[in-house]
Amino acid sequence: MQPLKLYSAPTPNGQKVHTFLEELKAVYGDKFQYEYHAVSLKENQQKEKWFLDINPNGRIPALQDPNRDNFNVFETAAILLYLEKHYDPEHKFSWPSSNPKADDYRNEVLQLMFFVHGGVGPMQGQANHFYRYAPEKIQYGIDRYQNETIRLYSVLDKVLEGRDWLVGDGKGQFSLADINAYPWVQWHKWAGVKDLPSNVAAWVKRNLDRPATKKGMYLPDGKHELLDKILDPNFDGEDEETKAHAKESSAWVMKGMKEDAEKNKK
Amino acid sequence: MQPLKLYSAPTPNGQKVHTFLEELKAVYGDKFQYEYHAVSLKENQQKEKWFLDINPNGRIPALQDPNRDNFNVFETAAILLYLEKHYDPEHKFSWPSSNPKADDYRNEVLQLMFFVHGGVGPMQGQANHFYRYAPEKIQYGIDRYQNETIRLYSVLDKVLEGRDWLVGDGKGQFSLADINAYPWVQWHKWAGVKDLPSNVAAWVKRNLDRPATKKGMYLPDGKHELLDKILDPNFDGEDEETKAHAKESSAWVMKGMKEDAEKNKK
Repeated sequence: MQPLKLYSAPTPNGQKVHTFLEELKAVYGDKFQYEYHAVSLKENQQKEKWFLDINPNGRIPALQDPNRDNFNVFETAAILLYLEKHYDPEHKFSWPSSNPKADDYRNEVLQLMFFVHGGVGPMQGQANHFYRYAPEKIQYGIDRYQNETIRLYSVLDKVLEGRDWLVGDGKGQFSLADINAYPWVQWHKWAGVKDLPSNVAAWVKRNLDRPATKKGMYLPDGKHELLDKILDPNFDGEDEETKAHAKESSAWVMKGMKEDAEKNKK
Repeated sequence: MQPLKLYSAPTPNGQKVHTFLEELKAVYGDKFQYEYHAVSLKENQQKEKWFLDINPNGRIPALQDPNRDNFNVFETAAILLYLEKHYDPEHKFSWPSSNPKADDYRNEVLQLMFFVHGGVGPMQGQANHFYRYAPEKIQYGIDRYQNETIRLYSVLDKVLEGRDWLVGDGKGQFSLADINAYPWVQWHKWAGVKDLPSNVAAWVKRNLDRPATKKGMYLPDGKHELLDKILDPNFDGEDEETKAHAKESSAWVMKGMKEDAEKNKK
């Protein structure tokens, strides 16, 4: 195969795809190949024409497949489903159609992928925005989105009751449902959510304990200072360094928001 | 078949499923059956135990299938994919695997379903919240989410350039990509977004012109006064009646938000 081209950055959305790419490499070795192309969010490269030709939404990550006529895929969860469809021939992360419950499990995976894609991701993203990036402190926004994130985690906690993984027989089987959910939940402290319910906390650890997933969280170069901090059990979510980081990120977040607003006047 | 059991309410999320159910009925007639069970959001019935047993997330719509061991499905887009998988044997809304582009189109449908499910739905929902329901007027929130909604519509506009439907050969074929996106966009005035870009406006009309889709928008009983108002080209989004409606909705929206916050203390 020719290497897939991934365009990405080390955020929770990028990491959903990074971890799956590394999980596929762990199974298929050199038979599975991809190239990592770093996109600088700070320089707003995801709004440049070459990137918009791959993803009209101007958001990382995006994937281009030279083996299939340069087919472009955007939206994290659609990328995961694409990779599984075309690059997991042994069904290591799903259920082959010979399994009588394959259709049900496939749909349960989709339910949880949409739940995370429409709930945890966007709501936790808004908590990040009001808690870390917004230029004015708006307590209503902080509370609304932190509370909703906590509520969504409580739903995951219920699904994980007595289980290791979100979907599958018995204690479950590691699947796209987990891969699609884990990176966001791992970043909970960044949204100002200090604690996780117990089943979710154990499941988060279980994901991070997978060597390929951990490697994926540290793409592209094995270093991620902010993630190190988040993973430190003694770090409670705030210090001078994270404040400085948030201030720096806020500058380009607000610049992008302003440019979008000017381009699409209401 | 035994009738599918739909638990729903006439909101944009409910209507995504309502329109597809009616489109399936238009094709398959009495061979396809469902029962509509109204869930009162005003009475917070979606948080009652019987409903949480069907959907642990406590959100409408949810589907239960007596033909498949009472399998439960939650999340609008997962319900659409479930219905297509099990109840559209003639592939009237997708591409049979004999079509050489079936895999690509299927993934393009998924990309746009996730785009709407993680973008248009939640962001327009936040615009509704800050514009109509929040007890304090927070201009930052109103602007942030209205601008983002407008930006997301501009992406749809680009995808629709020169096309009738979002995915497929030539001018495209009506598919889940359209069904999943249309109801939210139809409600744009409720979010305080007055105008649609031209390709999106033509596509919205094209959806509403489908008799089955239109019938679905008016489930369960053929009446929907607020939708009538939204569909009136002379209505610009605000009047005394909509203010009264928003105030009434705000009461239960805020009550639910408070109850959730108390249940999941941060």
